[in-house]
Amino acid sequence: MLDRTYDGQVCSVARALEVVGERWTLLILRDAVLGARRFDEFRDRLGIATNVLTARLEWLVDEGLLERRRYQERPERFEYALTPKGRDLAPVLVMLMKWGDRHYPTPGGVPMLTLHRECGGRVDRRMRCGRCTEHVNFDELEITAGPGLKAAGLEPFASGLRASR
Amino acid sequence: MLDRTYDGQVCSVARALEVVGERWTLLILRDAVLGARRFDEFRDRLGIATNVLTARLEWLVDEGLLERRRYQERPERFEYALTPKGRDLAPVLVMLMKWGDRHYPTPGGVPMLTLHRECGGRVDRRMRCGRCTEHVNFDELEITAGPGLKAAGLEPFASGLRASR
Repeated sequence: MLDRTYDGQVCSVARALEVVGERWTLLILRDAVLGARRFDEFRDRLGIATNVLTARLEWLVDEGLLERRRYQERPERFEYALTPKGRDLAPVLVMLMKWGDRHYPTPGGVPMLTLHRECGGRVDRRMRCGRCTEHVNFDELEITAGPGLKAAGLEPFASGLRASR
Repeated sequence: MLDRTYDGQVCSVARALEVVGERWTLLILRDAVLGARRFDEFRDRLGIATNVLTARLEWLVDEGLLERRRYQERPERFEYALTPKGRDLAPVLVMLMKWGDRHYPTPGGVPMLTLHRECGGRVDRRMRCGRCTEHVNFDELEITAGPGLKAAGLEPFASGLRASR
């Protein structure tokens, strides 16, 4: 998928980027974390060419980040579910989001909120809850539509936004 | 730099990827976090073509993630230092590294260790210190060569590995 591997680089960042270092791949995983499952959901949301989406989904299945599951028999239809390995990438996406929120703010406010599932408080980029002041683990986050998404008149996924657990 | 922007996407992940969603860019930032400053350091470490490196460094300066500083007058020479905005990406790189460590382990052990600067304990992917059991913020990490890097006979940067603060 990538032009080259980073020969001679003993580095887990380089290794991770060989697998997910392509922006469509990370955006597909973002949508999977937010609840997308079906080919059409990914395609419509991303505005990605069908052949590119097919190739990226296949790659993610081969690498074990997504699992392909049949959800209908006639006609046969498949959906793509995050595996634990795929879900483990959620912290990378959350940290990318926090960086984007901070350095490229959206006029109407943050597009997505990261909430502490237990108390509902907002979690900051240091993973500290603004309400109970506890440190929050990535698997204790609930990710939900924020003011920026609502201001733009956009809706979360039909299948519902899901927490990154 | 990217082929397209994600029109109609109100999303900080997409916005962040417009800026850093290219693998060389993230590897340049990784090396900057680990202490690289000079053009030759980046080039030799990455094995990247000179013209590509020049373009990527210029992009990162334009976007405010790196600052170009003259460190010698005759002949004029420049180095590239992380700005606070660039340093704010360290959590993304640390989380990518943790994911790579976990799912694509290096035979000799982890290439880099993330240590809690205060007590020297190893910090896990949930940002918990194995020694004092405290939660550790990203700016309290010391990143240092691990067994995997040593097993491969590789050295950290001449300028010394620096913590991601």
